[in-house]
Amino acid sequence: MAEKLEENTEAIIDANQQDIEAAISSGLSENTVARLRFGEQKILARARSLGKIAGLSDPVGQAIREESLSIGLHVKRVRVPLGVILMVYEARPHVTVNAGAFCLKSGNASILRGGSEAVHCNILLGQLWQESLVEAGLPKNAIQVVSGSHQEVRQLLELDEYIDLVIPRGGKGLIRSVAEYSRIPVLKHFEGICHVYVDKLGNLQSAVDIVLDSKCLMPEVCNAAETLLVSREASSQLKELLEPIRQHGVVLKVCDEARRIDNRLEQATDEDWRTEYLDMILSVRVVDGVEEAIEHINQYGSHHTDTILTSDESHAARFVREVDSGVVLVNASTMFCDGESLGMGAEIGISTDKLHARGPMGLEELTSYKFVIRGEGHVMGQWSETQNVANQQQ
Amino acid sequence: MAEKLEENTEAIIDANQQDIEAAISSGLSENTVARLRFGEQKILARARSLGKIAGLSDPVGQAIREESLSIGLHVKRVRVPLGVILMVYEARPHVTVNAGAFCLKSGNASILRGGSEAVHCNILLGQLWQESLVEAGLPKNAIQVVSGSHQEVRQLLELDEYIDLVIPRGGKGLIRSVAEYSRIPVLKHFEGICHVYVDKLGNLQSAVDIVLDSKCLMPEVCNAAETLLVSREASSQLKELLEPIRQHGVVLKVCDEARRIDNRLEQATDEDWRTEYLDMILSVRVVDGVEEAIEHINQYGSHHTDTILTSDESHAARFVREVDSGVVLVNASTMFCDGESLGMGAEIGISTDKLHARGPMGLEELTSYKFVIRGEGHVMGQWSETQNVANQQQ
Repeated sequence: MAEKLEENTEAIIDANQQDIEAAISSGLSENTVARLRFGEQKILARARSLGKIAGLSDPVGQAIREESLSIGLHVKRVRVPLGVILMVYEARPHVTVNAGAFCLKSGNASILRGGSEAVHCNILLGQLWQESLVEAGLPKNAIQVVSGSHQEVRQLLELDEYIDLVIPRGGKGLIRSVAEYSRIPVLKHFEGICHVYVDKLGNLQSAVDIVLDSKCLMPEVCNAAETLLVSREASSQLKELLEPIRQHGVVLKVCDEARRIDNRLEQATDEDWRTEYLDMILSVRVVDGVEEAIEHINQYGSHHTDTILTSDESHAARFVREVDSGVVLVNASTMFCDGESLGMGAEIGISTDKLHARGPMGLEELTSYKFVIRGEGHVMGQWSETQNVANQQQ
Repeated sequence: MAEKLEENTEAIIDANQQDIEAAISSGLSENTVARLRFGEQKILARARSLGKIAGLSDPVGQAIREESLSIGLHVKRVRVPLGVILMVYEARPHVTVNAGAFCLKSGNASILRGGSEAVHCNILLGQLWQESLVEAGLPKNAIQVVSGSHQEVRQLLELDEYIDLVIPRGGKGLIRSVAEYSRIPVLKHFEGICHVYVDKLGNLQSAVDIVLDSKCLMPEVCNAAETLLVSREASSQLKELLEPIRQHGVVLKVCDEARRIDNRLEQATDEDWRTEYLDMILSVRVVDGVEEAIEHINQYGSHHTDTILTSDESHAARFVREVDSGVVLVNASTMFCDGESLGMGAEIGISTDKLHARGPMGLEELTSYKFVIRGEGHVMGQWSETQNVANQQQ
């Protein structure tokens, strides 16, 4: 498939161009058009990424746990594919490449349903996938790109007998609607209202760097920080902390107390604490200390990714224990909530669910397991004399 | 709670008696009345079992995986409770004791909704739970026994904001209806159509013992065998294999080929291969060999628990790999699909789902995890010179 992407770059760009023109003429937002765009650079980046995914170790057949019991049974849990995975996502053609590869590498068949705005490009990518599968001697339908109406997607979501898992990727609306209509288990990838909590300001520059990294490196991604909490103690240097962030072009929306320190800043409302800006905006609140920070995060946050900056080990330990989020960090940027950085090879998404997989999901999170038990004629009850003797001897 | 069960045995028996009388006078089946019965022996057995559950190691806070990355980050996945678990089950009062204990031990709050036939007994057990929790300094509502109409259960099943997991235990009808109405993730415990496949008859007596154990030790449980498959090769001794099983009181329903060998036996229909008898009945089919056995199991079985008896390692390996069941065994009874026997301490059930947990579920399967990441000012991008130097040095 990597080769096919390289060989067919022009055709892919053409198909993408058709989608882009249709999107522009039907008046879709600039953001949507930008996400839709799948140019040469992005295509080649996908081809390279496929090489990397191919090189990851195969999770299927791996023993998760293995032990020999005293009664002589050998018990092992072995990873197996989940089966058929349905991905429902928005108009980002690169997901068609990435998700197909992830599902295939983890031994799953996949049904890929991208946003209708990307239909020409996705159909072509689906053809390239199937040609690649056939050439590799794999079943052609191991990866299927489907287009079709919302009504047809709803019909797919009822096929719990044939589809094992649905992963919706996209805005809140898409995910809610998939979760509502699906009879198949759903692994949700909801929004990230992520926090940086500055508890103790040891090195001011390091704190500034972490806030900047968490907010500005990729403001559009789910693990970008949306709210900065500062302990009353650290707020003595609030001006020095906020100034370089403001200078980086971040719009700050602050609580009453912070506004008393710097009254040029915009006032935050209660709604701000619940908002995923995905933009160069940061809400700022001064809190009493670690306890109030944890309360704020658990109340207003989305249980996604939150970090504490502190030199106080007991505060760090409490934060890590009590913040109910998929990823909690100490003295590190929220950007590290990322499967690749965390040594998982790559990631198919970041689950905001608690069941099955939480936080960054790699290949292993697309598998289930089976128990494999080996004995030598083992029975529980007593049925024959031979057997009793054999079992007693063990 | 164990003490309270012992101190209040009489009151529990009285409450149970009320339920039994109501059940008898409303004409419920003998089986239902038998399941409802919660006498002194069963109560004391529960008290002992509570002591054992209390002694299991606490899964919460355990590190599942831990590594230090080359960039200096320390990454750990730590087990955390799921949150609130709703158990919906039939008229078996012992589940009220067992499930409450399991959820509590794994750090979860639980809402226990047993069958309305057991309402008096369950309400009393719920009171004892709450007294015990208060005396132990734990939140009274960590275990809540609820009664209420089916309509109210449906309302509970919509509270996906407050309840994290639903575990239905009981007949197919109950589980289907919970799965249909629930907006909360459901871990299903469906039926077991389990198979013993006799591939090579090494020791006839051992094969007889395993079939007897799988079928007769507890015919009413989900991992009891319902179908015996015999390879054509092994079928040369089919009479010798079946006779002791028949003599044990098992009704045999057999395929055409087996009937030609012993025409006294009852003819099986296609429906038999799909039937969970939960009774002293066994369907029997002669198959070509391991390939046809695997096909039969994957087609007619319920992906629960299946065993192969063989001395042929390649057949065993193929069976283990290709049978798509939560538990696959080699030369051992299907009775070993049991959390306690497998060293999981005890089990809250056997999941027939592939997501989150498959097969026997112990305490760990009632937990989720969070990523805990520790750094020393780690950022992804380059924000300040100090930081760059620090990162480059690592």
